[in-house]
Amino acid sequence: MSKQDKNTLRLIFPQWQGGDNPPYYLGSRLLAWLAPPATGSVEEVPVPAPTDTPLPLEEDMRGRTVLVKQIREARALIERHNPQSLVVLGGDCLVSLAPFAWLAEQYGDKLGILWIDTHPDVQTPAQYKNAHAHVLGALMGHGDHDLTDAVKKPVPAKNVMIAGIHDPLPYEAQFIAEHGIPTCSPQEVRDGAQPVMRWLNESGIEVLAIHLDLDVLDPHSFRSLLFAKPGRGKHDFGDVAEGKLTIPDVLKLIGEVTTEKQVVGMTIAEHMPWDALNLQEMLKKLPLLGA
Amino acid sequence: MSKQDKNTLRLIFPQWQGGDNPPYYLGSRLLAWLAPPATGSVEEVPVPAPTDTPLPLEEDMRGRTVLVKQIREARALIERHNPQSLVVLGGDCLVSLAPFAWLAEQYGDKLGILWIDTHPDVQTPAQYKNAHAHVLGALMGHGDHDLTDAVKKPVPAKNVMIAGIHDPLPYEAQFIAEHGIPTCSPQEVRDGAQPVMRWLNESGIEVLAIHLDLDVLDPHSFRSLLFAKPGRGKHDFGDVAEGKLTIPDVLKLIGEVTTEKQVVGMTIAEHMPWDALNLQEMLKKLPLLGA
Repeated sequence: MSKQDKNTLRLIFPQWQGGDNPPYYLGSRLLAWLAPPATGSVEEVPVPAPTDTPLPLEEDMRGRTVLVKQIREARALIERHNPQSLVVLGGDCLVSLAPFAWLAEQYGDKLGILWIDTHPDVQTPAQYKNAHAHVLGALMGHGDHDLTDAVKKPVPAKNVMIAGIHDPLPYEAQFIAEHGIPTCSPQEVRDGAQPVMRWLNESGIEVLAIHLDLDVLDPHSFRSLLFAKPGRGKHDFGDVAEGKLTIPDVLKLIGEVTTEKQVVGMTIAEHMPWDALNLQEMLKKLPLLGA
Repeated sequence: MSKQDKNTLRLIFPQWQGGDNPPYYLGSRLLAWLAPPATGSVEEVPVPAPTDTPLPLEEDMRGRTVLVKQIREARALIERHNPQSLVVLGGDCLVSLAPFAWLAEQYGDKLGILWIDTHPDVQTPAQYKNAHAHVLGALMGHGDHDLTDAVKKPVPAKNVMIAGIHDPLPYEAQFIAEHGIPTCSPQEVRDGAQPVMRWLNESGIEVLAIHLDLDVLDPHSFRSLLFAKPGRGKHDFGDVAEGKLTIPDVLKLIGEVTTEKQVVGMTIAEHMPWDALNLQEMLKKLPLLGA
């Protein structure tokens, strides 16, 4: 466990435009409300609240302009604090772009990225219009120019580990194979995460940035996820893989890596609190509570 | 819709001991966080946070001493503000006892209680040890002395309507029949709630106290409920009925009654946010976030 201290900056980043999905906005705020008090500084990246106006598709990326603005504002906040370590409470997965890019500049080849996610997030606008699925590719220097422009020091594939991944899409599988990105399946995670431990010991990694996409969790046991949308149809989310891990599985994995290495980055992303959102809307309409 | 105003007191009441179930504590706090800002006064009834020490069984009631203390403290807060109307953000169902008893004293036979719940909450310690299932009976003057002592003006059965109820236990069914309490099934609620509208028009009711037990909702569409406990077995909760309504069903019902009558009491109870609780515990254990 790497303790938080005065040199840890906590970024609340309620970005929802990267997934084009408004509930991530409340999800970030709720994570911030639930988190233990910060001992260091706390900043919130300015993000416009969701409205009924659809996000524009700009050069094949949904909400490109507003996303680029948020990436720059996150960067400016980080530079102002110049922290040794960063916590990011998202928001969609794109929230890790500016913070992890900054950590890569600080720690160079000593930085490893442990991407705990069902999905590898290595697509580009050519495959998918929502940038939350592009972020790990961009951190490695691949994909859309507006995202890679934020990455001054791309992270080499050997410094990346994707854990909890299964059944990638064909493009994703090809990208992983071509670049040789190490991975660890959900079953391997449960069995002690040997691929992750080998990766840690055989690479030159000294410090870790951990990205935890909550979608890595089984939507039957944790329901504040896209895939646990109330009333969803079985095929509503196409052929995309769904999470297979539990919170104890994830905590065990993180516990194992933190006995080996210091953590300098910790993101929690893709929190989609359906019940809280539905309650919030209900409360607005109840007598003596609504406006 | 009855608007909130300066004469509305909002009580945050994180009582969990009435259901002997700690997650109601966070549930109340989270409801308060999600609710629109109050225009009147807000008070929080002092409730000890859950610990690992089991609640004692005292004269067949779990946590009797601490519950009586909380009922008195809620009463004292209400008397201090002397409001015209009350909002209660629970906590378990027992949170309505002191507020609704107080409203009955203020409004007399003009007060109707609309109890939106899968369960009638008319048991006593002889049938069940947890007082959250006793509260409506106590408001009618029946059951345990420590609860009925808080009810100076019992509400007659004809002024009570239970909506959303189905498959009551034998004792409950007998109590409802013997006292002639009007009821409205989930299907009748969906079909326009004619029994509720007749009750409103044929009784002398002028104002309403509404108790909304979230357990009236279908646990498949709203999961922050006892019955939606992650990993539960099919028979974990015995033969107790589970909710069949949706939030839109409940809002439609409340909308229909508020076009007819003014609302002077509004409780939301039994919010059990499993995901928020599990996230809160996880965040304490993550690097850079835990203490």
